[in-house]
Amino acid sequence: MNLYSYEEIEIGQKEEFRVEIKEALLDRFREITGDENPLHRDEIYARQQGHKGRVAYGMLTASFLSTLAGVYLPGERSLIQSVEIKFAKPVYIGDILTVTGEVTEKNDTYQLIFLKVTIRNQNGEKVLRGKMQIQVLGEEAA
Amino acid sequence: MNLYSYEEIEIGQKEEFRVEIKEALLDRFREITGDENPLHRDEIYARQQGHKGRVAYGMLTASFLSTLAGVYLPGERSLIQSVEIKFAKPVYIGDILTVTGEVTEKNDTYQLIFLKVTIRNQNGEKVLRGKMQIQVLGEEAA
Repeated sequence: MNLYSYEEIEIGQKEEFRVEIKEALLDRFREITGDENPLHRDEIYARQQGHKGRVAYGMLTASFLSTLAGVYLPGERSLIQSVEIKFAKPVYIGDILTVTGEVTEKNDTYQLIFLKVTIRNQNGEKVLRGKMQIQVLGEEAA
Repeated sequence: MNLYSYEEIEIGQKEEFRVEIKEALLDRFREITGDENPLHRDEIYARQQGHKGRVAYGMLTASFLSTLAGVYLPGERSLIQSVEIKFAKPVYIGDILTVTGEVTEKNDTYQLIFLKVTIRNQNGEKVLRGKMQIQVLGEEAA
């Protein structure tokens, strides 16, 4: 886990990690949320909708932004304040996603960092793009 | 599960449900995301940070927006296009959240509905506010 202080973070800094969308993740996300929508749990229904299989919950893909902030950028001292997400393409079971965050702006007064976020699949296609505003907690608090 | 068509949905329409934030949800969210940030898993660390206990992942609270769209508004025909989230207050284990969505706007050309979203805790405090843009799939596709 990274432990960047606010001062250590630079505009343009990037962090990236990969994750595989396994079937069990969809099932677990359904258990958490109670989202029983058939697009995500019913293979046949999803195919009837023109998909190649069960579609991953958009908010499941988005949940990796939690990891991006809380483990990578800034890591331990992260406190997410706001998130904007656009879903660009569907994500399927077996997809391998690359989650990337890049620092675009800093606010010294409030110790905020602003990230541009991109999630791409194994074919390089953007499946999610977004922005995050994250407070970097001070050492006295950490 | 609701099955509203685009035509059936009216501006001002509201849907609401409740959910209890159990410890197991935090643990499951950590298993899904790999977000090992101690604020969410380490009681002592969280108290040192001035919290009354482990803080729920913001993106866990946000994941109930999946349920709001996919089960309630519009329900089965939901396809989330974008989400904006602001975290207003921390959520703790044992909190009972009320998730509310209200239709603020419709776009007939693209069959989009726009929701204003609010999540409140058992004390009536807003913990999350946001906006969602959701496509309502047509009957031919459903």
